[in-house]
Amino acid sequence: MKVNFGIIGFGFMGHIHEKTLNSLEATKVVAICDIQEERMEDAITEGVIKTTSVDELLKIEDINTVIISVSNHVHKEVVIKAAKAGKNIICEKPAAMSVKEYDEMVAVVKDTGVLFTVHQQRRFDEDFRTAKEVYDQKALGNVFTVQSMLYGINGNMHDWHVFKKYGGGMLYDWGVHLIDQLLYMVDSKITTIFADLRNVINEEVDDYFKILFRFENGITGEIELGTYFLADKEKWFERHWFIGGDSGSMYSDGFEPVGKVARTTRLLKNVPGKTTMTASGPTRSFGPPPEGVLITEELPKVNVAHIMFFENYLNALEGKEELLVKIPEVRRVLAVMEAVRESAATGRSIDFE
Amino acid sequence: MKVNFGIIGFGFMGHIHEKTLNSLEATKVVAICDIQEERMEDAITEGVIKTTSVDELLKIEDINTVIISVSNHVHKEVVIKAAKAGKNIICEKPAAMSVKEYDEMVAVVKDTGVLFTVHQQRRFDEDFRTAKEVYDQKALGNVFTVQSMLYGINGNMHDWHVFKKYGGGMLYDWGVHLIDQLLYMVDSKITTIFADLRNVINEEVDDYFKILFRFENGITGEIELGTYFLADKEKWFERHWFIGGDSGSMYSDGFEPVGKVARTTRLLKNVPGKTTMTASGPTRSFGPPPEGVLITEELPKVNVAHIMFFENYLNALEGKEELLVKIPEVRRVLAVMEAVRESAATGRSIDFE
Repeated sequence: MKVNFGIIGFGFMGHIHEKTLNSLEATKVVAICDIQEERMEDAITEGVIKTTSVDELLKIEDINTVIISVSNHVHKEVVIKAAKAGKNIICEKPAAMSVKEYDEMVAVVKDTGVLFTVHQQRRFDEDFRTAKEVYDQKALGNVFTVQSMLYGINGNMHDWHVFKKYGGGMLYDWGVHLIDQLLYMVDSKITTIFADLRNVINEEVDDYFKILFRFENGITGEIELGTYFLADKEKWFERHWFIGGDSGSMYSDGFEPVGKVARTTRLLKNVPGKTTMTASGPTRSFGPPPEGVLITEELPKVNVAHIMFFENYLNALEGKEELLVKIPEVRRVLAVMEAVRESAATGRSIDFE
Repeated sequence: MKVNFGIIGFGFMGHIHEKTLNSLEATKVVAICDIQEERMEDAITEGVIKTTSVDELLKIEDINTVIISVSNHVHKEVVIKAAKAGKNIICEKPAAMSVKEYDEMVAVVKDTGVLFTVHQQRRFDEDFRTAKEVYDQKALGNVFTVQSMLYGINGNMHDWHVFKKYGGGMLYDWGVHLIDQLLYMVDSKITTIFADLRNVINEEVDDYFKILFRFENGITGEIELGTYFLADKEKWFERHWFIGGDSGSMYSDGFEPVGKVARTTRLLKNVPGKTTMTASGPTRSFGPPPEGVLITEELPKVNVAHIMFFENYLNALEGKEELLVKIPEVRRVLAVMEAVRESAATGRSIDFE
């Protein structure tokens, strides 16, 4: 028997969810809902019920799970309604506008006993999983820095994401993924957060941020996103990773990651005064490396796809697996985002955990 | 008539200073001094007086200016001696191990009325001046980030720089230049500093740092140096700059800078839902740019050389110019370095000016 889904909010992500659920053997879209009727015109599911009322959709008894892909500012209201209607819930990210909102939602979820998770599907991004694989293999020795970057060309912000009141801006949109990935990779308490958050091109919402995390295990994590951050370099307007350890570094560029693990054949410590002549005068420490000292290895191959998020969800429904994206993890990311806003506003680091 | 110089400390930099002064019409090396006699064997100046005693050198009456290129931990002692001997002084960087030491030195300098400056010759580095030219031209609109990077291959640290007690480590060695350059470029008070400082490969001294500066004018400055920070990319083990503004970005790689000013032909703001399919699923904001949207301009050409430091010094001696590297500027960089160490040790940002 198929698991019946309702999709609440039939915009960009609603459409994607419909396609995904249609592609799975085990799932069926029973109903969709959007306050704008015309957005549901191009639904592809035969016989799907269309309604402009969330309450109507929630009354449909044979819906097991709702996917909530309305704009961010109404997640709380819809999640609470859905939980009270006894539906299991997959909520779009960010789950809530604040930790406070989230706690209210989670209280109802726990009361009603429904399953609840958040669509952090980018835990299955190929670039992220490649970096995580290098990290998990301990291939770089003691890691001191993990850097995660994403650049865009035009200050892009789509639909309601351009408006503050709907929960717009890049911190809510992509920041929640980039933070979730980093915290899913680095299993350690955060001691402090220092952040910069800007509206470079957009008037209401942020479109640039840089976040530094000091972790208790000694690693410094770093995230940088700019939607107007320009260079004519290969794969520039995509994802970038750099991980530095004491026995090697790893870099990758692109959603489909191109990069290397790089090591040296020897370490120079107390060496005398061999000079490299550079355009900026002599230097002993920097300049082109001696032949043969830098060696590289291919990045590991990973086999991941966003569909795995739903495979995990369906297994969790059957009690066969734990949910991958857990309630306290989502809360932690929201708390980081609040610390980011506070740090950016004050210019000071925020003590965290 | 030539200006007579003495060089105190005839190691790596002492040798370079001898060559520089020999290349100038207006200067003559009268005497050199090193506690290790054999280091002076390869001096190239005909008839130069060699001594292992600083006091002996300072007794030579016709020396106008001494260059102090001993290791960092004895700068204070030698500067004070030289000032009391009535010699004008060019001191190697960092001028002192701490602000406290520096203030003691400067007090004597001021008492004695000698000229005093610090050899921050990297204000004349081509890569730096190219970035500064873009910044000064206001070619990028409102700048929000200025990023300055330098990477090396082998954890390199030379001679006494490997030992803490001599003032070793990369923050003292290159950090003082990178900070000086940034503060020379961005004319604004620093409100906070947040920094990471590591011994990745070296046991005693730092060989990695990342420093974030929040400036009062709204710019965030960033410096990153790693001596074991690896990638097989063109000009990787050299200098890098990225400046981001709201009407363009600038990047350069290399001591001889290769890069571009990049702009867009249009800004996308509230656009509907055009999807880019990437290896990590659909995204509307990131991915390859549309044809023709990204345009680039060549970097400006600058004409600078380290010799300009000495040209300025000689003009200042004659009262024709101000010294480029001023006493309070040097103090400010030392104070930043102390804040960097404090921030790195506490994991917290430091309120600065």
